[in-house]
Amino acid sequence: MSKIFVHEQLIRFSHCDPAGIVYFPRFFDLAHGTMEDWFALALGQPLPDLIRDRHIGTPTVSVQCEFSKPMRMGDTLRFELSVRKLGNASVQLAYSGKKDGVEHLRMTQTIAFMALDSGTATPIPDDLQPRIEQYLTG
Amino acid sequence: MSKIFVHEQLIRFSHCDPAGIVYFPRFFDLAHGTMEDWFALALGQPLPDLIRDRHIGTPTVSVQCEFSKPMRMGDTLRFELSVRKLGNASVQLAYSGKKDGVEHLRMTQTIAFMALDSGTATPIPDDLQPRIEQYLTG
Amino acid sequence: MSKIFVHEQLIRFSHCDPAGIVYFPRFFDLAHGTMEDWFALALGQPLPDLIRDRHIGTPTVSVQCEFSKPMRMGDTLRFELSVRKLGNASVQLAYSGKKDGVEHLRMTQTIAFMALDSGTATPIPDDLQPRIEQYLTG
Amino acid sequence: MSKIFVHEQLIRFSHCDPAGIVYFPRFFDLAHGTMEDWFALALGQPLPDLIRDRHIGTPTVSVQCEFSKPMRMGDTLRFELSVRKLGNASVQLAYSGKKDGVEHLRMTQTIAFMALDSGTATPIPDDLQPRIEQYLTG
Repeated sequence: MSKIFVHEQLIRFSHCDPAGIVYFPRFFDLAHGTMEDWFALALGQPLPDLIRDRHIGTPTVSVQCEFSKPMRMGDTLRFELSVRKLGNASVQLAYSGKKDGVEHLRMTQTIAFMALDSGTATPIPDDLQPRIEQYLTG
Repeated sequence: MSKIFVHEQLIRFSHCDPAGIVYFPRFFDLAHGTMEDWFALALGQPLPDLIRDRHIGTPTVSVQCEFSKPMRMGDTLRFELSVRKLGNASVQLAYSGKKDGVEHLRMTQTIAFMALDSGTATPIPDDLQPRIEQYLTG
Repeated sequence: MSKIFVHEQLIRFSHCDPAGIVYFPRFFDLAHGTMEDWFALALGQPLPDLIRDRHIGTPTVSVQCEFSKPMRMGDTLRFELSVRKLGNASVQLAYSGKKDGVEHLRMTQTIAFMALDSGTATPIPDDLQPRIEQYLTG
Repeated sequence: MSKIFVHEQLIRFSHCDPAGIVYFPRFFDLAHGTMEDWFALALGQPLPDLIRDRHIGTPTVSVQCEFSKPMRMGDTLRFELSVRKLGNASVQLAYSGKKDGVEHLRMTQTIAFMALDSGTATPIPDDLQPRIEQYLTG
């Protein structure tokens, strides 16, 4: 039985554009915030510590998103994060962005684990691998 | 023979993250700037006028991007924009993001034409359709 | 006895620059988020409703800030908001930005109440005036 | 006779908020872009090189701004940058933000020169001091 990480964020004035809806690049920043909290709260490995103590970064290799309904200032965006694929040195994350139970956007993002000193791919640390696997959907 | 719209932007301090490379959500903002200039300079229809005079917006329906090489502060990002698909009320744009002739990222973005008063899809205006078509790749 | 509104925000990856510290323009965005929550939670008047229902905006007329210590990814920024001056159609807000009880920045911001339809100053609504006054420092 | 550095930037969709005007924190980012170009084009010392080769950063110590008129998408913001005070390890910059010859905002920003390795103030390098002085207003 796989887990899902749930994260809610308030849509603020600065997320919205002159049309009054969230400017789409900001959804990727909001998703990144969800991922940061997933690392810290669910995996027990805050990203700042991963970077500073282990010299490992998690650059985004590819991303895709479908925006089906707009979000507006004052809305609460609920991201449901799960793991779609788990590789040796990369993870594909899936995000379902909902408002009041209805999906407004759907995103997938592939991140790589990278040794910051060499700039090359590095295996997911042994202690993190099983914790990430708990979020892998069937 | 299809056209390509070329747009160059300087990577600035504020585009970059603590790892010293462009934070990936900002590439979508940079691409949007390229699209704004394409509308204004190549199609002869500035987006602010499209919104204000014609009450037509161009929301992004879907986007996908592969990031193959990082970009850093001081780099010049050259976007080559072309049209991959041209529908009745939507356009799929392709962006190749290059530095010194080498591709660092590749993006596709589908925008819809939307009547701002009704919030529903509206056909691409007759005067814009043939101008957009000039950028349609074979 | 005047009130103080306290708001805590996590410093995220995207707030930080290549030097690893918060890029200073983002502190104004973080302060704006504090102000939004003050309107919604303390004054009982969410800004989106003020704009949409009452057609009143709150543009920033002037701002000043002293940055005495940097903030880093993973830090918790605690803003303490109070009202320094209360005019007929404007409010001067003071923000003390702290980490672990120590002040890292100090900001003042003057906002005006503006009728969005005419673009001119409008008196602070009667129901808001006494609620704002509770935060006026002696 | 002191010099003035002039820098023009197009106000883009993403700079503007739901009220259709530039969201004020973004003016500080736009001013930072002007400062970056001043370092690169006027002083002959690009900031990325200052950071990477000389290990010197230029954190902002204080900033103040008065916003007298709004700016909108499609406007061209012309910043006129000059130096108001020149210290041993700090510079106070003044920016006049104009549209069509009329001032819309006025900003001052004090930056410090900081040795990135120690995190302490460092004198302005000898080769930069006389070049900065050319922009000092009488």
